[in-house]
Amino acid sequence: MADPTSSSHLIFGRHPVVEAIEGGQTIEKVLLQQGTRGELEKTLRHLCKAQGIPLQYVPKEKLNALSKSNHQGVIAFIAPLAYQDLDQLLAGLHERGEPALLLLLDGITDVRNFGAIARSAEICGAHAIVVPQQGSAALNAEAIKTSAGALTRIPVCRESSLLNAIDLIKSYDIQVLASSLESSLPVYEIDLKKPSAIILGSEGKGIQPPILRAADQRVRIPQVGVTDSFNVSVAAGIMLYEAVRQREMSF
Amino acid sequence: MADPTSSSHLIFGRHPVVEAIEGGQTIEKVLLQQGTRGELEKTLRHLCKAQGIPLQYVPKEKLNALSKSNHQGVIAFIAPLAYQDLDQLLAGLHERGEPALLLLLDGITDVRNFGAIARSAEICGAHAIVVPQQGSAALNAEAIKTSAGALTRIPVCRESSLLNAIDLIKSYDIQVLASSLESSLPVYEIDLKKPSAIILGSEGKGIQPPILRAADQRVRIPQVGVTDSFNVSVAAGIMLYEAVRQREMSF
Repeated sequence: MADPTSSSHLIFGRHPVVEAIEGGQTIEKVLLQQGTRGELEKTLRHLCKAQGIPLQYVPKEKLNALSKSNHQGVIAFIAPLAYQDLDQLLAGLHERGEPALLLLLDGITDVRNFGAIARSAEICGAHAIVVPQQGSAALNAEAIKTSAGALTRIPVCRESSLLNAIDLIKSYDIQVLASSLESSLPVYEIDLKKPSAIILGSEGKGIQPPILRAADQRVRIPQVGVTDSFNVSVAAGIMLYEAVRQREMSF
Repeated sequence: MADPTSSSHLIFGRHPVVEAIEGGQTIEKVLLQQGTRGELEKTLRHLCKAQGIPLQYVPKEKLNALSKSNHQGVIAFIAPLAYQDLDQLLAGLHERGEPALLLLLDGITDVRNFGAIARSAEICGAHAIVVPQQGSAALNAEAIKTSAGALTRIPVCRESSLLNAIDLIKSYDIQVLASSLESSLPVYEIDLKKPSAIILGSEGKGIQPPILRAADQRVRIPQVGVTDSFNVSVAAGIMLYEAVRQREMSF
C-alpha cells in the first residue's frame, strides 16, 4: 500500500487539480491558499461541492511545507481508496435480494476508532460504511492500517448529507436504527434479520438531533455498570455482532 | 487523580523501597540498577516474587532520569490503584450467590486496549479483571483515563500465574471460556447465565497454549468476512454483551 503522504499522492497547481477533479479522480480533500479569490476559487468551490470533496483554506506556509514545487496556491490529496456510490450499492443489494447491513457514522473523526469500526464491519459482513463529507476521519493509510486492511475490502460511501443518505436508505425499505443511550429499547429486541442501517455518533457529542429524529428507532446496548458509555468502536462491534447472531440463529 | 509519573508516586532508595513493600503498599513495579548484587538484590528479588511485583533491571541512566535525589540503585513505582485479592473476591461472590462474570487477560500489553476493555467490563457488570504479573498493561493513569474512569470502579486482580488463577476460579464452579478463532462453537451457544470467566489473548499471539488447554471450552465470535480478527477490546465487548443479553433475557 502506498504512503498517501508521499508526493505521489498529491496533485499540485491550478490546472492539474481542476483536471483531476473533472476527470473523476477520487480526491480526499483540496487545500486552497487563504485569501485566494476570483475564477479559480469559484471553480474549485463549485467542483468540490458538486463532488462532495472537502475544501480547506490554509496558510501559504502549509502548502509550502507539503510541496517544494510550484503549487500555485492549491494542492489536492488523492484518496488511497475510492469512495463508492451509495445509490448504486443499494440498488445492487436490492437486486441480489440480500438483507442490507449498513453502518452510518456521524462525526467519528478519530482515525483509530474509524479503522477499528471498519475492521468489525468487514468481519460481520456489513455491506458498507456511510460517512458524511465533513467531520469524518479520512480514508487514509493510518485508517487502513488500524482496520487491519478491512478498509480495502468494505465499501465506504461519502455523502454530502447524512440526512439525504438516510432518505435514500429508507427508500430501499431498510430500517434505520440510531444507537442512543437515551433509548430504553435494547438492541436484542429489534429484528436485525431485516435489512438494517445502524447510526453511531461520536463519543463526545452523540448523534446530531436531526439525524436522530430521522431514524426509525432508537436502540441501546444494555448497560449494567455506571461508566458513561462504551468506546464507539466497541459499541459498533456489539451492534454488528447482534445482527450476525440473529441472522445465524434464524437458520 | 494524581499523575503516577510525578515523583510523589515514586519511592527512592534501598530502605524506603523495602519498607514500602513489607508494609503492604501497592507497588506497580521495582526498577533495580543493572549489576546490583548482594543482600539488597536478594531481598528485593524474594520480596517482589512473594508479592507478585514485577522487578526490572535497568541501566543507571534510567534511574538517574527518574530521580534527582539519591536513589541508591532502586526505585519503586506506587500503583495509583490497589490490586485486589482474587480469592477474597471469589469468596465474596460465592457468599452473595452472584453468578460471576470475570475477564482474564493473557498478554494484553497495549494500555489503550486495556483501558477500553475495563470500560466495557464495568459497563457490563463484570466482577473483576484478572491479569498476570508479567506481560500486562500497567494499572496507571493512562489506563484509567482510557477506561473513562471505569478502572476506579472495577477490581483488578494481578496474579503471579494465570494457570493458578484458573484453578482457583474453577474451584468455585465457574466455567472458564477461552476466546479462540480456532473454535467452531459460537459464543451465543454457550450458557453465559452460569458463572463464567472469559479469557482473551493478545491480538498478535492469542492465548498461550497451556492457558488455552486449561479452559473448559473454546468459543468463537462468529465471523462472516475475511479480516483476521476483531480488535481485542471489541472482542471483549462482544463477549461481555452476550453475557448481559443472556442474563437480561432470562428474566
